[in-house]
Formats: sequence, structure tokens, C-alpha cells
Amino acid sequence: MPEAASAHATQARIGDSEFDRDTAVTRREPDAPGDPSVPGVYDIDLSAGWTIGNALNGGYLLAVLGRALADALPHPDPFTISAHYLTASRPGPAVVRTDVVRAGRTLSTGQASLFQYDDEGRETERIRVLASYGDLDGLPDDVRTSAKPPAIPPVDQCFGPEDSPEPVPGVSAIADRLMLKLDPGTLGWALGSPSGKGEMRAWFGLADGRDADPLSLLLAVDALPPTAFELGLSGWVPTVELTVHVRSRPAPGPLRVAVTTRNLAGGFLEEDAEVWDSADRLVAQSRQLARVRLD
Amino acid sequence: MPEAASAHATQARIGDSEFDRDTAVTRREPDAPGDPSVPGVYDIDLSAGWTIGNALNGGYLLAVLGRALADALPHPDPFTISAHYLTASRPGPAVVRTDVVRAGRTLSTGQASLFQYDDEGRETERIRVLASYGDLDGLPDDVRTSAKPPAIPPVDQCFGPEDSPEPVPGVSAIADRLMLKLDPGTLGWALGSPSGKGEMRAWFGLADGRDADPLSLLLAVDALPPTAFELGLSGWVPTVELTVHVRSRPAPGPLRVAVTTRNLAGGFLEEDAEVWDSADRLVAQSRQLARVRLD
Repeated sequence: MPEAASAHATQARIGDSEFDRDTAVTRREPDAPGDPSVPGVYDIDLSAGWTIGNALNGGYLLAVLGRALADALPHPDPFTISAHYLTASRPGPAVVRTDVVRAGRTLSTGQASLFQYDDEGRETERIRVLASYGDLDGLPDDVRTSAKPPAIPPVDQCFGPEDSPEPVPGVSAIADRLMLKLDPGTLGWALGSPSGKGEMRAWFGLADGRDADPLSLLLAVDALPPTAFELGLSGWVPTVELTVHVRSRPAPGPLRVAVTTRNLAGGFLEEDAEVWDSADRLVAQSRQLARVRLD
Repeated sequence: MPEAASAHATQARIGDSEFDRDTAVTRREPDAPGDPSVPGVYDIDLSAGWTIGNALNGGYLLAVLGRALADALPHPDPFTISAHYLTASRPGPAVVRTDVVRAGRTLSTGQASLFQYDDEGRETERIRVLASYGDLDGLPDDVRTSAKPPAIPPVDQCFGPEDSPEPVPGVSAIADRLMLKLDPGTLGWALGSPSGKGEMRAWFGLADGRDADPLSLLLAVDALPPTAFELGLSGWVPTVELTVHVRSRPAPGPLRVAVTTRNLAGGFLEEDAEVWDSADRLVAQSRQLARVRLD
């Protein structure tokens, strides 16, 4: 078990943690009794704590949208959620507008958009999401997963930015919020020797010790360094689209995240992420399409 | 090269084929000069030719929505497209309503919904899609794909429904529209001996010989028998959500499709499909989340 960050003497809990506070959305209520309500509209101040360089992490933003949809829909957990990233979000005020597409018995579908404000105060859409929600705790416990957890060394043989003798370029505010320990087999890029294989693996948790939950899985799938680094590419690898399947409520304890790229071509690549919990359950799978700058 | 179906003496062409006719959408124009236009609204009569049993194939439906979006957006090709299947579509009249979410320089994003009519003539939403489009022909030809094509025997050692001595249960109208030759390694289910491995592989083409194009790839990823059959499960495996990445315009000639399931659990499974063209290019990747009935 990775040691808790020294700044957090007590482990944070789901519902009371940095991640919960920074993804909390406030539903707009009617202005006065009798006024029509504004269902499904939420305000948030996006936190600069989840930036990489100047850019807000795509998984953090997806978790914000996911939290709004969890409130707007009759089912609590994202089962499958797809996000198209339109323009770059920045820390500061944002509004999430949701629509219920269909409310079913075991699944509901919703749509959500995150907007920010331009210099004239007009709303500009940053991200649009389409998602189907259900109740993970209502699923039968029949598990016939044939996939195997990633082969990753024990966490004390893995390395995070804090282990580097010098500041690692590109590490940013988000690093302070995560417990991220990378497999040395996917760390060649940090030592000037990228492996040439599109792989990235790490132990993952939140720095304040909060256990994972379905919403924090949306962050976990996009929180590792880009596989592009191991493919010898530098620079930003912006996400065009990200789809996450959440398949199980994660058990307490650290997660293992394994990301793979097999189709770098035409200026784009895919990143496939698998998230495994401490009970060896494959709790989430994702694929994103990202743009690369070819060297 | 598989032999052309005998009913089609001349190979059909992209733009003039069963697939093109059955996915053609008609844009609604203003009623009279000066009337406001109804941009982005399209009518279609969904064809019973693409059913499996009573259900219209999800890939066929995605291709219909994809064709409407190709007209509505300033870019011609789906790069990444996600569909949530809400209620079952049936052959007959349908309307597709599209919205342009963002028109960018190299990518545009759009949304589309397919509706059909209930007994009172009211529109009921069947499918909602979110997609980002670009121009495949504008991409650089730098290809660093590390994935390898599937190991599938030559087409004359593979088998389709027409090779069965008896009618294969579950084969339906769509079988007449496809050239589908399954790898004998993934045919155990048809002989009462499912392999227990969540795999399905086949050579794929259209029965009238039309070559593949980006829109027909949306059909190809959902056209094989369910991997669930090889996992020993029977019955319907309805798609909840399907996301397709189209990465390259496919070369002429037959496609190879390989589908894999690794996470059958909790009443759901994922199907990951890869589509390879005759030039050994990984032209499309998809993942769907589907519901299973556990035996």
C-alpha cells in the first residue's frame, strides 16, 4: 500500500476529499417560489489544481460532467460515457447543462455540455458528453473476465515525479493531487531513452488517500503520461474523444492503470486504458482518440 | 478474392449499391421559397434487408446516422463516432435530426438522433450519436501502427452461412447482403462446441461486391456474430453503446474483422473490433458495450 502523502495525516474519504470538492457542481434552483425550475443546470469553478501545464486534465473534466449527470439522471453510476473535447477548458467558472435523453428501468441516457464564458460573457462550449448510467450495485456478481491484470512491479519499485532528482519537465499541479508510481518499464522517456513501445503503466491513487469510486475512475483513465512519450514524441497530445466503460465499483486501495497505443498513424493515435482494482477486478476500460504532432 | 455473389453479375460501386441505397437519407428542404430551411433534418425508410431476426443491425443504423452527419457537417468522414441505442429500431420510416456542435478547421463535431413514430405518430428517439468528423484524405501518410493483422485462414478456408448444410439458426436478411466468411477457429458455436474464448474473426465484404468506404466500416464493426456465442451464451446481445474510430480510407477488396471480448461480467460485455483492409492497414477500431443474458 503506498504511504499516504505527508500533508494528509488522515486519509480522505469518498465524499470529503480534494477530488470531491474540486468536482462538486451546484445545481441552479428557481429564483423564487413558483418560478420554473432550471433542471439539470449546474455551476462549478474549475480548479487549477488539476492542470498539466496550462491545460485542465481531460479526465478531471469528464468527472465534473459525470457528477452533474449523476445528479440529473435517475441512475447513479456511469456505465458508458463518451466525451468530445471541442475547445480547451481553463480554470475558473463553468456551467454544465444536462438533458435526460431516456429514463429507463435499469439504464438511463443523458447528454451534458460544459460551457465557459468568453470576454463578452457569452457561453462557449468546451466539451459535449453522451452517457448511459445504471446502478453498479444492482449488477449480478457473475464475473467471467478473461483479461489478466497488468504485470507491474510492486509499488515500492515504481517511481513518481517526487522520486526524480530534478523537476521532471511537464509535471504540473495535478501531480500534487495524485499518487502516481510508474512502472520503470514505461519510464524510459523520462531518462531520455523512450522504449519505442506505446505503453504506460502505473499504480494510481489520490494524494489525500481517498479511495476510488466510479467517478474517480473517469479521472484515472486519463491521468498517466501520454504513451506518445514512450513512442519518442514530445509535445501536447490533446484528446479529441474519450469513451469510458465503468464496469464495477472499485474496491478500496490503489488502482493499477495500463495504457496501450497500437495505432499511431496519420497524425492520430488511440490510447486504450484498463483500470484494475485491489481485488484484481477490471473495473474500467477506456479508449481515447488523440492528436499527435509528428516529429 | 471471394467470388461475387451470383445475383450480382457486375460488382456494385461505392455510391451505387445496396448499402448506399439502403442508407441514403433525404434532406428536408423548405416548403416554399423564402420559408426558413430545416437544416440538418433527413428522412429515410429503414430497410428490412439489414435485420437479424426482427432487429435492425446496429452498424447499419450507425451508417445511416453517419451519412446524415456527413451531409450536415463541413467535413466528410467520421473520425470518432459514439452511438447510444435507446429503443429498438424497426424497418420503416424514420427521421434523423442533426446539430452542428462545432465546425473547426480540421475537425467538426456534430450530434444526431434517429426517431421513429409511435402509433399516435409521435416521434420516439431510437438512437443518439455524438461524432467528430474530418477529412481522411487530408491526413499525413505517416503510419507507425504496431498492431498486426489477425491470423485468419485464407478466405477459401473460411465459412459463411451459405456453406452450412442446413439453415443456421439466427441467420437473417442481413446475411444476403454481406459476404461473411468466418474463421473456423471461431465457428465452434455453430457446431455445438463453443470455444469458451470471446473471439470472432471473419473476412467481410458486401454481397454485391461494393468496396468498403468509411461509412461501410461503421457496418463492418457490428456485422459479425456475437462473441457471446463462442462464450457459450445464447440469445440476444443488444448493444447499449458503440464507439468507432475510422482511421483510414479502406483500400479496395475484402476486409478482415477480428472481434474480442475480455470482460464478460455483471451482465455486460465489451466487444472490441479491429478492421483491416487489403493493404494491411488498421482502418477502424471500435468498442461496444452490450448486455448479456447470463445462462
